[in-house]
Amino acid sequence: MFSLPTRVYYEDTDAGGVVYHANYLKFYERARTEFLRQLQIDQLNVAQKHDAVFAVRHIDIDYLRAAKMDDLLIVTAAVEQMRGASIIFKQQILRGEECLSEATVRVCCVSASAFTPREIPSFIRERLTS
Amino acid sequence: MFSLPTRVYYEDTDAGGVVYHANYLKFYERARTEFLRQLQIDQLNVAQKHDAVFAVRHIDIDYLRAAKMDDLLIVTAAVEQMRGASIIFKQQILRGEECLSEATVRVCCVSASAFTPREIPSFIRERLTS
Amino acid sequence: MFSLPTRVYYEDTDAGGVVYHANYLKFYERARTEFLRQLQIDQLNVAQKHDAVFAVRHIDIDYLRAAKMDDLLIVTAAVEQMRGASIIFKQQILRGEECLSEATVRVCCVSASAFTPREIPSFIRERLTS
Amino acid sequence: MFSLPTRVYYEDTDAGGVVYHANYLKFYERARTEFLRQLQIDQLNVAQKHDAVFAVRHIDIDYLRAAKMDDLLIVTAAVEQMRGASIIFKQQILRGEECLSEATVRVCCVSASAFTPREIPSFIRERLTS
Repeated sequence: MFSLPTRVYYEDTDAGGVVYHANYLKFYERARTEFLRQLQIDQLNVAQKHDAVFAVRHIDIDYLRAAKMDDLLIVTAAVEQMRGASIIFKQQILRGEECLSEATVRVCCVSASAFTPREIPSFIRERLTS
Repeated sequence: MFSLPTRVYYEDTDAGGVVYHANYLKFYERARTEFLRQLQIDQLNVAQKHDAVFAVRHIDIDYLRAAKMDDLLIVTAAVEQMRGASIIFKQQILRGEECLSEATVRVCCVSASAFTPREIPSFIRERLTS
Repeated sequence: MFSLPTRVYYEDTDAGGVVYHANYLKFYERARTEFLRQLQIDQLNVAQKHDAVFAVRHIDIDYLRAAKMDDLLIVTAAVEQMRGASIIFKQQILRGEECLSEATVRVCCVSASAFTPREIPSFIRERLTS
Repeated sequence: MFSLPTRVYYEDTDAGGVVYHANYLKFYERARTEFLRQLQIDQLNVAQKHDAVFAVRHIDIDYLRAAKMDDLLIVTAAVEQMRGASIIFKQQILRGEECLSEATVRVCCVSASAFTPREIPSFIRERLTS
């Protein structure tokens, strides 16, 4: 499974002394972006040459344990399901053996110019299912 | 229902030209905080005098339409359910008549010192149900 | 002088219990944006109709006292100097009588399409100097 | 000189299509934190065992060229000057041969408990000057 190491810095924390809850979504997106990059899917290139961008449509996220300043986290990303115009990712944030958070993220493929739903380009579909 | 007007600034947007998806969670929390403040529930005071803080445990969020730079949004907050140690909020982000996002947010009351679950202080329970 | 009230939320703080230093720059920009809006200068409109956007070129910022969770801050903005293609703003962040931060911000007018320096549109120049 | 590679993600950009200006300060702090970590200076440990934290007091930053989505940046950090209770860092953000930004950052050593200025612990001083 794809996984990205991510360090927690001051910018990520809040006055509660732990990572601010909205920032977990940033970690999840970094992992999805690097997962795509590893498959030679460059989002800027896809937007410009294929008129396709991925927009987040739905997130279901559980916060199980708090991530803290200086933690070295592992953020995973895996495709759970693929439809014509959307992809469902299953993701986790781990600290060693501990699971700190789990999320299900549905992204929808939309036209970069018109922002209307469109089919996922076939080369992306192929690389994500191989 | 409680509602908070919130302006979209450059800081909230991303290179897609719309509000970055993680930042919707910030808007939702601003509304919850002001909702509590309006009921004379001051979170810093509650942490110091009652050893209680609210930690986000679960969020289910739908992104329906994109918020944009300079938009004047309305963010709502209402208590959907209250249990012994947790509260479920139902929230929306509106732009005029349009609903841009909906979220269900479960926060859990934890000890500010030990970070373990504890009963919601009774004065908070009363103000939220009245 | 123009001033914008701004509330500090959890999102703005860090594990040190105070507002994260980079977030002062967000507060300063909100104030510049509202200052322009008050003069009927709509940055999106200026970008689209006049091919002009303002890019930050230099900031000199002093951090004098720490802003904290729940603080109600006042952020000021005033034009200190205007040149052909740039504007220098003088700004402060206040909490009651206390000055928490001071900044000098130089923004440069650039073509929205080519990102090269250009003259400040004359109607903006007039409104900012009147 | 110490340098940290940093990737630009969606979270870092704004509707102008480039990295939001306040986020350069986050990149600079990540580099200072890793610079200290490399010298076995763990900021959490220093706060707890030596009652010392570093607070940013002054930043002078130049924005020379815009960083963009997906850029792989190099962020440098070097000590320019050390006084009794403060350190002045000189930092740059590079993209290949291009310098995108330069900053001078003064941090002050303060008591973690009282938030008043105090001497830099001697082991930190020694490691930073060796």
